[in-house]
Parts: sequence; C-alpha cells; structure tokens
Amino acid sequence: MLDQLTLTAVPGLPLIQPGDDLGALIVDHAERANCPLRDGDVVVIAQKVVSKAEGRRLRLEDVTPGPRAEDLAAQIRKDPRLVEIILRESRQVVRTAPGLLIVEDRHGLICANAGVDRSNVEKTDGDWVTLLPVDPDASARSLRDCIQALTGQRVAVLINDSHGRPWREGASGVAIGVAGIAPLDDQRGSHDLFGYELQSTVVAVADQVAAAASLLQGQADEGRPVVVVRGLRYEARDAAAADALRPRERDLFR
Amino acid sequence: MLDQLTLTAVPGLPLIQPGDDLGALIVDHAERANCPLRDGDVVVIAQKVVSKAEGRRLRLEDVTPGPRAEDLAAQIRKDPRLVEIILRESRQVVRTAPGLLIVEDRHGLICANAGVDRSNVEKTDGDWVTLLPVDPDASARSLRDCIQALTGQRVAVLINDSHGRPWREGASGVAIGVAGIAPLDDQRGSHDLFGYELQSTVVAVADQVAAAASLLQGQADEGRPVVVVRGLRYEARDAAAADALRPRERDLFR
Repeated sequence: MLDQLTLTAVPGLPLIQPGDDLGALIVDHAERANCPLRDGDVVVIAQKVVSKAEGRRLRLEDVTPGPRAEDLAAQIRKDPRLVEIILRESRQVVRTAPGLLIVEDRHGLICANAGVDRSNVEKTDGDWVTLLPVDPDASARSLRDCIQALTGQRVAVLINDSHGRPWREGASGVAIGVAGIAPLDDQRGSHDLFGYELQSTVVAVADQVAAAASLLQGQADEGRPVVVVRGLRYEARDAAAADALRPRERDLFR
Repeated sequence: MLDQLTLTAVPGLPLIQPGDDLGALIVDHAERANCPLRDGDVVVIAQKVVSKAEGRRLRLEDVTPGPRAEDLAAQIRKDPRLVEIILRESRQVVRTAPGLLIVEDRHGLICANAGVDRSNVEKTDGDWVTLLPVDPDASARSLRDCIQALTGQRVAVLINDSHGRPWREGASGVAIGVAGIAPLDDQRGSHDLFGYELQSTVVAVADQVAAAASLLQGQADEGRPVVVVRGLRYEARDAAAADALRPRERDLFR
C-alpha cells in the first residue's frame, strides 16, 4: 500500500460571520462535497475564520491610541490605532523597523503585529481588523468536540496562521491552536537506518501540517480556509500549541 | 472538482550509494508502484540521498581539526573533527551554545552544523558524515533533466532539508535546492476577498512544499526520501533556492 497524504480544501464555505457555527459548516460542506470527515483526519482551519466566527474583531475608528502607541507608530510609520491594538495583544516588543512590528504576543508567539490583520475583513461600516482567538487551543478543542458530536468521528483540529521567518523570505504556516494532535514528534533516543542514536531530531509535526494546508488555503483571490489532511500518522493526544514554543531561556535570538 | 493535493512517498528505493543514478531510480520505482511521474508534479528529494549519490561525505578519521575548530569544539563540547568540517562549510558562525553550532553556511543558509550530519550514514569503514550538495540548485536541475529525458514529463524538483527555528521547537522542512519552481509567491499588490490591497503577503511556497513532504519522509525507522506532490499550482520557472534567503541588510536577528 502506498504511503500517501491527501489534502482536500472543503469547498463552498460561506464568508464567516460573528456567531457562525463553524464546526457545523465544515461538517456540512465536507459532506456535500462527498468527502465526509473520518477518524484520524486532521482538520486545518485558518485562524482568520475562527477569529471571525468568535467575533474577534475591532473597528479602528473605535480605538484611541495611547502615548506609547502614538510614539511607536510615528517611529515605524504605521496607523497609531493599529499599533495600539497590537500593543494590547502583546507581552513584549521584540523588533521594530519602518513598517514592521515584531512582538511576543499574549500567547507567546513571536510574530508580526501580534496576528492583528486588516486583510480579508469586510470594509463595510468602518475599518475592521481581526485579532487572534483569545485561546486558540480552546477554539480547536471546541471545534473538535462539535465535529465529533455531529459525525461521531474523532478528528484532530489545527488552527493555522502564516508567520514570517527571520532569515528566509515569505510566510509559512504555523499551528497556533491544536486539539487531539501533539505538535512535536520527539525522536531523540530512537535510532536511524544504521543504528545511530538520533541526538537532536524533534519534528515540528503540527507546523508542517499547517504549512502543507496553507498551500491550498490561498489568500488573495479565493477563500479556502479549511483543509482536511488524510493519511497522516500522528500522536493523537491532548496537547497545547504552546508545547512548540521555545522557552525564553533557550532562545538565542530574541 | 475538488481542490486537492496528493503526496506520495516513492516506495522501495534502495539505500543510495555514491554514484547511484538517483533520477533513474526515482523514475523506475515510481513506475513500479504504479504512480508514474507526470507533468506538473513536484518531486521532493531529501538532501541526504542527493548528498550520498553525489559522494558528498567525509570520514571523521580523515579530518585534522585546526586550532579554531579545537577551541570552538572545547567550548561547545562537540567533536573537533566535526567542528572542523562545519567551519569549512561555513561563511560565518552565527550563534553557539553547548552542543549547538549555528552558522551561515556556504550557500547562505542559517542553520545548525552547516547541514553536516552523522545520522543515516553507513558506519562501516569509519565514522562518516554527509555534507550538503556543492550546488543544490544544480543538483535539482540535473535530476529534473534526467527525469524529463527518461519520461518526457516536465516536473519540478525540490531538495529539502530540516531546519530548526529560533522561537519554535522542532525542525521543519525547507527547500535548499529548486528546479522549475519559484520558491516564493509574491502576492503584494493583489487584492483580498474584499478588495483590500495585500501589503505584505509573500508566500514561502517551496518551503511549505518541503515541510509537507517532510511529513512523509520520516527519519528514524524507515527511509522514504522521495515524495511526489501532485495537484499544486505553482509558478514553473527557472529559479534559485537562494531567492528565498533574506538579504543580510534586512536581517533583524543575526
């Protein structure tokens, strides 16, 4: 039997609105497309639609920047209201440059703009931005439970976002919330093809799944926010996306 | 029609030896498994087997460490012969810590150990390590040409390795050599679902493909070094993996 992974974008999802039952929509549209969810699938959901369903958005017009945001915004030439929101969502500013604000966000993610994003948000009735879910692991667990209740199938759920990297151009998918899948596969202590004990091999399973799904999700022209990954061998257990965050004391690059 | 990606590990490849015709082996084993290569496929090949086929290996017993390698090895507690090889393959040491040597390698990659690796190398006749290919893009082009000559199909070829990340645990696949696929998809200037002009969306297509394939390649227990990705929309053109390296003057984290 071939060792194969299949990634399928769930077609036909509507634009997600605050309060939408995202889990039910995913189940319904996967079934309509004749690809019902099955035990062992990993359902990868773009952060943007989870945030929208949870009403995690703000209108720039409603935000009054404080003096710190005003100063920083002038320095890096960004909208002070946007900077105010980013600072509220952050623990620490890590780097700044014109147009660039890299922070440690409230979840411990080192990323640009604390995940606050103006793209793919309706422009009616003001200038909205989305924020990351308050607790992405809890969002993933809730979606997983919903899918299980509706289908009886035990899937893993992974919420992904796209992050830049320090030394490489381009953004790549990372897992910011997980349910039912361990983010890391620690192979240290196991042996290679020739019996050599692997010293340092920890595999970023969830991030690699996030990156793979991101290839199908696209950004600009079409929305395909949900991708079903079938055929992956993974450790199905309760876990937290933060398991994949490097502790600050081991961080050589902050 | 469903928007779908399929990743298939080419089964049954033998352990690769110096001088092996890797392109012919891939074509042959893909055909035997009833999944012949087709126009538009992306053939992802683990760096380790490309290096082996090209004879890019050294025996530690044959290496005499210089004083710089001896000093650094004592400081970070690594084999001085291994450190000597790593320094020869590097332009600059970026960070060190006990057991850890992060460099800019000769290709411009910021990575641990300049890609020099002891795992999955035969232990007969000494203690061998593998080095990265001399020119991974040239290796990819050569494999692509070989596949086209044997099958008439125009595929893209991507050579991947696994790199650690500064703030996240676990290694993830990256593209260190490409042929026939642009590493980045620059969407700046295009518009989102609501007509908002995307400001900063450059997608790391090749790295995401590398990460996806890495999910199937595994490391320890079985060798599945070649993965065929089918269904990906990508920009099929001559390109270099270094297109995805951030120029030093834009690097905020060196």
